[in-house]
Amino acid sequence: MKPILLHEDRLFPADEKTRGIARSLYQTVKDLPIISPHGHTDPRWFAYDENFGNATELFILPDHYVFRMLYSQGISLQDLGIRRWDGGETESDPKKIWQIFADHYHLFAGTPSRMWLDTVFKNVFGLTDMLCSANAMNYYEFITAELTKAEYKPRALMDRFNIELIATTEGALDSLQHHSVLKGTGWDKRVITSFRPDDVVDASREDFVDNINKLGEITGSNTTTWTGYLEAIRQRRAFFRDHGATATDHGHPTALTADLSVSECEALFDKCLTGKSSAAEQELFRGQMLTELAGMSIEDGMVMQIHPGAFRNHNEDVFQKFGRDKGADIPMQTEYVNALKPLLDKYGNDPRLSIILFTLDETVYSRELAPLAGHYPCLKLGPAWWFHDSPEGMLRYRHQVTETAGLFNTVGFNDDTRAFLSIPARHDVARRIDCRFLASMVAEHRVSEEEAADLIKKLSYDFAKQAYKLGNA
Amino acid sequence: MKPILLHEDRLFPADEKTRGIARSLYQTVKDLPIISPHGHTDPRWFAYDENFGNATELFILPDHYVFRMLYSQGISLQDLGIRRWDGGETESDPKKIWQIFADHYHLFAGTPSRMWLDTVFKNVFGLTDMLCSANAMNYYEFITAELTKAEYKPRALMDRFNIELIATTEGALDSLQHHSVLKGTGWDKRVITSFRPDDVVDASREDFVDNINKLGEITGSNTTTWTGYLEAIRQRRAFFRDHGATATDHGHPTALTADLSVSECEALFDKCLTGKSSAAEQELFRGQMLTELAGMSIEDGMVMQIHPGAFRNHNEDVFQKFGRDKGADIPMQTEYVNALKPLLDKYGNDPRLSIILFTLDETVYSRELAPLAGHYPCLKLGPAWWFHDSPEGMLRYRHQVTETAGLFNTVGFNDDTRAFLSIPARHDVARRIDCRFLASMVAEHRVSEEEAADLIKKLSYDFAKQAYKLGNA
Amino acid sequence: MKPILLHEDRLFPADEKTRGIARSLYQTVKDLPIISPHGHTDPRWFAYDENFGNATELFILPDHYVFRMLYSQGISLQDLGIRRWDGGETESDPKKIWQIFADHYHLFAGTPSRMWLDTVFKNVFGLTDMLCSANAMNYYEFITAELTKAEYKPRALMDRFNIELIATTEGALDSLQHHSVLKGTGWDKRVITSFRPDDVVDASREDFVDNINKLGEITGSNTTTWTGYLEAIRQRRAFFRDHGATATDHGHPTALTADLSVSECEALFDKCLTGKSSAAEQELFRGQMLTELAGMSIEDGMVMQIHPGAFRNHNEDVFQKFGRDKGADIPMQTEYVNALKPLLDKYGNDPRLSIILFTLDETVYSRELAPLAGHYPCLKLGPAWWFHDSPEGMLRYRHQVTETAGLFNTVGFNDDTRAFLSIPARHDVARRIDCRFLASMVAEHRVSEEEAADLIKKLSYDFAKQAYKLGNA
Repeated sequence: MKPILLHEDRLFPADEKTRGIARSLYQTVKDLPIISPHGHTDPRWFAYDENFGNATELFILPDHYVFRMLYSQGISLQDLGIRRWDGGETESDPKKIWQIFADHYHLFAGTPSRMWLDTVFKNVFGLTDMLCSANAMNYYEFITAELTKAEYKPRALMDRFNIELIATTEGALDSLQHHSVLKGTGWDKRVITSFRPDDVVDASREDFVDNINKLGEITGSNTTTWTGYLEAIRQRRAFFRDHGATATDHGHPTALTADLSVSECEALFDKCLTGKSSAAEQELFRGQMLTELAGMSIEDGMVMQIHPGAFRNHNEDVFQKFGRDKGADIPMQTEYVNALKPLLDKYGNDPRLSIILFTLDETVYSRELAPLAGHYPCLKLGPAWWFHDSPEGMLRYRHQVTETAGLFNTVGFNDDTRAFLSIPARHDVARRIDCRFLASMVAEHRVSEEEAADLIKKLSYDFAKQAYKLGNA
Repeated sequence: MKPILLHEDRLFPADEKTRGIARSLYQTVKDLPIISPHGHTDPRWFAYDENFGNATELFILPDHYVFRMLYSQGISLQDLGIRRWDGGETESDPKKIWQIFADHYHLFAGTPSRMWLDTVFKNVFGLTDMLCSANAMNYYEFITAELTKAEYKPRALMDRFNIELIATTEGALDSLQHHSVLKGTGWDKRVITSFRPDDVVDASREDFVDNINKLGEITGSNTTTWTGYLEAIRQRRAFFRDHGATATDHGHPTALTADLSVSECEALFDKCLTGKSSAAEQELFRGQMLTELAGMSIEDGMVMQIHPGAFRNHNEDVFQKFGRDKGADIPMQTEYVNALKPLLDKYGNDPRLSIILFTLDETVYSRELAPLAGHYPCLKLGPAWWFHDSPEGMLRYRHQVTETAGLFNTVGFNDDTRAFLSIPARHDVARRIDCRFLASMVAEHRVSEEEAADLIKKLSYDFAKQAYKLGNA
Repeated sequence: MKPILLHEDRLFPADEKTRGIARSLYQTVKDLPIISPHGHTDPRWFAYDENFGNATELFILPDHYVFRMLYSQGISLQDLGIRRWDGGETESDPKKIWQIFADHYHLFAGTPSRMWLDTVFKNVFGLTDMLCSANAMNYYEFITAELTKAEYKPRALMDRFNIELIATTEGALDSLQHHSVLKGTGWDKRVITSFRPDDVVDASREDFVDNINKLGEITGSNTTTWTGYLEAIRQRRAFFRDHGATATDHGHPTALTADLSVSECEALFDKCLTGKSSAAEQELFRGQMLTELAGMSIEDGMVMQIHPGAFRNHNEDVFQKFGRDKGADIPMQTEYVNALKPLLDKYGNDPRLSIILFTLDETVYSRELAPLAGHYPCLKLGPAWWFHDSPEGMLRYRHQVTETAGLFNTVGFNDDTRAFLSIPARHDVARRIDCRFLASMVAEHRVSEEEAADLIKKLSYDFAKQAYKLGNA
């Protein structure tokens, strides 16, 4: 057995002087509460506070980082127990699945998943040997047994993890019933929703027309008209705000925005409602809606998040058998300078607007995003996202963004995860990397240690609260 | 009060061994004269040698790096006293403006502006406390008082800064009257012009047709014909050369070049002269003109600089109110391999031609620019430009360019600035970063210390003189 | 005279702790046999085992890295003795050429060519002074004399270099006569061919129609029909496999793939056979053929290599006078996510398929290639290629690819060279850089020293054997 690596200096730079500075900075922020302003945890967990299931259900089945790597090395998704939406057979024995995972744990060397998982195994469960074929069943049984204890219930973990606030993400049609359960319990101050209207904005979805009808039913607004549709969205935003939401989220293929005339909008919306719109019309409609939603943000103060650039469900066969979010999303080149101009021409100088931009295309950090955020008052930069939510990815982000956008046009860290137990590990990686970045700035005499100490607190805590309007930092 | 950080080892790598090498290299070049072969200082300064105005006029109003950052954080351009070309009101009290700047000086942490400004405050004015809200008025008054002294006159500063030569940049229609004043004074050897004909080449400008008419008046050439137009440009080049110019500069949106037949050129020029040319025609015309100008460079020996890739005046509202160059220029993706081919097919192997390529798109360093410059005898690479004229930007440039293009296909540093007082600070950053780059090469046993000592002098001084044909280095 | 730099710690990181780790890792792999699974050495060398010619023939005339740099600094290809295919004159005195090379050896400072050449001069020939003008003739004469010795014959060098296996690359029409000579000698286990059918797949070539006719003659298949053409290619693949080939190689301008109906294929093939196909049709045909070839790989088990993204023979004048491969190939932006989808939709989940992707466009490492290889079971990533086959290029590759694709989706090193004597130097650079990369992972506590020791062997030896199906590692 090898021990789990979890050195107290992990991710700090090798140079002793710089490492010492990083270590000092880290001491000042490692215990700060966690603000998790964007992610995909399940609100049921916090609403009903029931114990999680077994190790396989918790760590493998929902984690596309894990099964994409296993799949890339020839392990079938069936053998990993991924549920098929075509009704095909899949492995149902969680122990068999866990054994496969353990047998291939070496594949994760050098990946953030390895560090997140090791941190959870050691810091949450107290395991000390690294997962391997030989200890797989011990691991499985130990974790599964621990999960039945009261101290592993979601709310207990919220406290143990020192999560001050977590935002979930729900579609526009969601009843928010689980968030409703939290109302008045005090937990509604710690678990809030976010408004993600892709289901009623993206006309390329098979269920788009249905969704628009449902939107009408829910709101009582006539969603067969452009005006009624916009009004219905406004209503849903108010409903989400009533469940704590301070932000919206938009996961479009591109960052395109548009600013059409009302009559053009009406015609385009009508076309989309036929269910026979072209890909170009769907793209234009999403672009127009980003501008409409920015206008609504100015009205109601919600912060917009734009997460563009994923080619979703790239593997057709996997999509047909297993459905969405099965590790086959691939980043594409993404353009922002021309794409955002219509929205920015209309609203870019309005002091009430706040848009947080994300990217899967690192080439835009220094070329487009930093210059845009370093000029427009409404734009801020979200942290390194998804494939780039990793030690090296975060370093590249800081090194490529800071000189033009400064640090004050960034918004701290997002864990963006559905893997609840990994949240402290993920924030810890971000804090360590930010300490490392600032330590190198100090070592190179670009900022003072005193400034760095102030900045690291902002990067670890304050900026997230401020950018997402979550109360005073 | 915090002290200004200006450590003697700033920007050197943290590793002590490498830092020691960098420090030794730096000692050999820190006092070399400054060659500033491309920039935007005002020739009036050197012609009439009058004192500068107050601190705000000198440091804030002309510096788009400064006010873009302040604007991005919600400070209005009016409050910063930026003059409106729509006639709207703007703050006129320089002290109020300076106080806002001081109140937000922390925003610049980690940016090159902070290092440039701190260097000027400390090394030029002798200030030792970092600018902050509390000392803002002291700063303002001290600097403003100093500026009235004889030793702060432009020519005195030229000597104090050890600037051997500076090139300004003037449009094709410029009378060069300020440069004329210098003629025969000896200063004409130290202050030269450069020929930037965008005003008579870019048919997308509102004033293009007027400019072509003016070009005809100035030269006596019939600029309503293609031949007369080219002849007029040739005349202006000769006029600029007579005022010291050794280089031309071209700030096009893209790097497109073209090689049309004479009849196609005539038709395209006629169309542009109607003032009703399309965007595509304007682009093609600019591209054709790059090729024409390369041909003229072969005739008259002027070095071409191509600065492509900025989306100028991206913020429509700011442009309407405040005009050009107000911090709303954003880089775009820029392609060179196909774009330059027509020009290179025609002239790329002519030993008399020299073209210096710049980019705002760092993705082309290793993919396009280094391979092009590492093959074509006419191509050399300008330094990291504008948003990338920064410590990290320069490091990326060296690391991504050197292995394919070598160092001898680069041209040393350009400060490219209108901020005269910051010129020593900018060259100092470049020299420090080049020392750092070479020190890492030495520490990794890729070049010897002896070679590095030779190369750092070339990067700091010789290459700029050679590439811009400014006399023997 | 300066000594050749060839420090035992070259390319290791400056930080002493990390350097120590790198040094330890390197000790475990520096003497491992070399697997060279992709390159361009001449099979004649191994078949007939004759001595090489003079220094100039060996080091300058075939090395486009060398003469592109010299050409970029104004030295004509004629003066370097590059043979003209237009029949023009060229320098024929190898000593004069060598002197020019020596006079300009300083240009290579900081390039991989310098390190490769110095390593060959010192480690293969025992020279200790760095090449310069003064010692040029000594160098020339010494090397040329050494080359006449038995120990410098190709097979002796194969043993001395500890090359376990080398793959050459031949076109589909090649008779493989030199490989035939090796059959049954035992050397056929160490020198194998690879199947590169660009000559019969790329309809943009002047000789395409001729090549298809020759393909018919060689195979006896009716290559004027789509079916017969495919059958002929299958036959040639079998013939190449019979000469040791385990892999195919495809050097297309883009990564486009297609999946047309049979009737569309037939029509497209017919059009290509007319010799009058458009650039778009040629591109589509290459794309369709990648998919066809993937299908054949599933049948016969050959590993596909895709090397896209070069603009070949960019310098028209050089091409007209000197022909192909004269240093005027320039990388272009290359897209993979959409381009590969047709092939991946058809075959991407077939466990029998293995495709190794290369790129000249580093922007796709983290954005496209790592996510694709980190999901699709058929995809693996080739090492940093060509312009990026350099210390910094390799580091960027590892840093940008590993976190998403892991190390197990990569295939070790390819030297990809025709410069036989430089092969050990090139593999040494790769091993050193991989040691450096892993040492930094260890120093940052991301992998253990024990894991790193296991991984470095895989990166240096095992993965190449496995990925190219060259026997058990």
